[in-house]
Amino acid sequence: MSETAPSASGPASAPIEATPDAGHQHHGYISSKDDYLKRLRRIEGQARGLQNMVAEEKYCIDILTQVSAMTSALESVALGLLNDHLNHCVVEAVAEGGAVAEAKLKEASDAIARLVRS
Amino acid sequence: MSETAPSASGPASAPIEATPDAGHQHHGYISSKDDYLKRLRRIEGQARGLQNMVAEEKYCIDILTQVSAMTSALESVALGLLNDHLNHCVVEAVAEGGAVAEAKLKEASDAIARLVRS
Amino acid sequence: MSETAPSASGPASAPIEATPDAGHQHHGYISSKDDYLKRLRRIEGQARGLQNMVAEEKYCIDILTQVSAMTSALESVALGLLNDHLNHCVVEAVAEGGAVAEAKLKEASDAIARLVRS
Amino acid sequence: MSETAPSASGPASAPIEATPDAGHQHHGYISSKDDYLKRLRRIEGQARGLQNMVAEEKYCIDILTQVSAMTSALESVALGLLNDHLNHCVVEAVAEGGAVAEAKLKEASDAIARLVRS
Repeated sequence: MSETAPSASGPASAPIEATPDAGHQHHGYISSKDDYLKRLRRIEGQARGLQNMVAEEKYCIDILTQVSAMTSALESVALGLLNDHLNHCVVEAVAEGGAVAEAKLKEASDAIARLVRS
Repeated sequence: MSETAPSASGPASAPIEATPDAGHQHHGYISSKDDYLKRLRRIEGQARGLQNMVAEEKYCIDILTQVSAMTSALESVALGLLNDHLNHCVVEAVAEGGAVAEAKLKEASDAIARLVRS
Repeated sequence: MSETAPSASGPASAPIEATPDAGHQHHGYISSKDDYLKRLRRIEGQARGLQNMVAEEKYCIDILTQVSAMTSALESVALGLLNDHLNHCVVEAVAEGGAVAEAKLKEASDAIARLVRS
Repeated sequence: MSETAPSASGPASAPIEATPDAGHQHHGYISSKDDYLKRLRRIEGQARGLQNMVAEEKYCIDILTQVSAMTSALESVALGLLNDHLNHCVVEAVAEGGAVAEAKLKEASDAIARLVRS
């Protein structure tokens, strides 16, 4: 598969070094960017597949099964990103301590709540 | 927007009449196909947007917020389709009664369980 | 275990016959009332167990594991009841047809949406 | 109500200082133990209420509404406890660094995944 090729030279890796000092850019916090991109491309493909299923009026239950699979795939991506976030941004903020740490922890808790409730 | 145009003449509407007797084709059960297609295109766009966010290493929490929004949008589509399914396929099967009705109800319950658990 | 004993003569079974004509009483729709009561008693026990864990400041992750187990148990009960509801009340309403059927289907869809989103 | 009284002098506050070195005892990590206990007692009451509703064969949709409310209440407790956990145990572990920090972060991520998926 050429799907992992971009990790070395593709558009996914280039920006990492390109904007090292942007305020809200957290370079390197994503453990395996190409893996996430691959999974998100697959999720995009599932969204397209669902459109075909609806356009062709495929059996409703089969469409719902696909939606459940897609939701699970999305949840997995979210949990992976959250894990990376805790291990990088939150750990760094905690090391800094004080208001920065508090703000990051609050922000992470809020994101977790949104995931649990969505 | 031309997004609603396909409802009159696009590929989405044509097949409705074209194969009225195919076994597992449930034509007409989807209350508003173009609305679903529009929502699914938007969800596909969200999947592409997420890829950009990951590729550019946008702030993790912002990515997670987008994932939560996308999950909610997907859930909404699923609940709408399930509602259509209950109102058409299940109602018809119940009218037929017997094993057909039982099978459809079991199938619907299983789909609901997958949605609740995903 | 005496947990299944009430099925024959306990307080759970007595009321079934006692008010056969009350408007909103849907006798017999619950496939296995004693099974539900047993599961709900277990869930009540889990709620009590959680209080003990919090009172004794048990390790937070262990408490969360218990909460997840309890949530899954509750979801299972809900899915079972919903299945019973579809197979009895909704089937009967569909047989009646018209506004009654529509109202029941709408009500069921709304309940499903609440379960999926909670 | 005397429900809030234990917060000042009850068994909940005393142990915080009493066993500072117990391995898996994380005294003081729960921000407001009495609030959690109150909420869990209410959840226990909901579980009892559900048993009554099932025993009396209350209308299924009303039972499901109660289950949804109870699930939301449980989720809220879980999110609160998780927040406390991140702010205490995880912060302390991160301060220690190394394998301890890693293990705590992994454990927290796993607990979050269980919550999101349950």
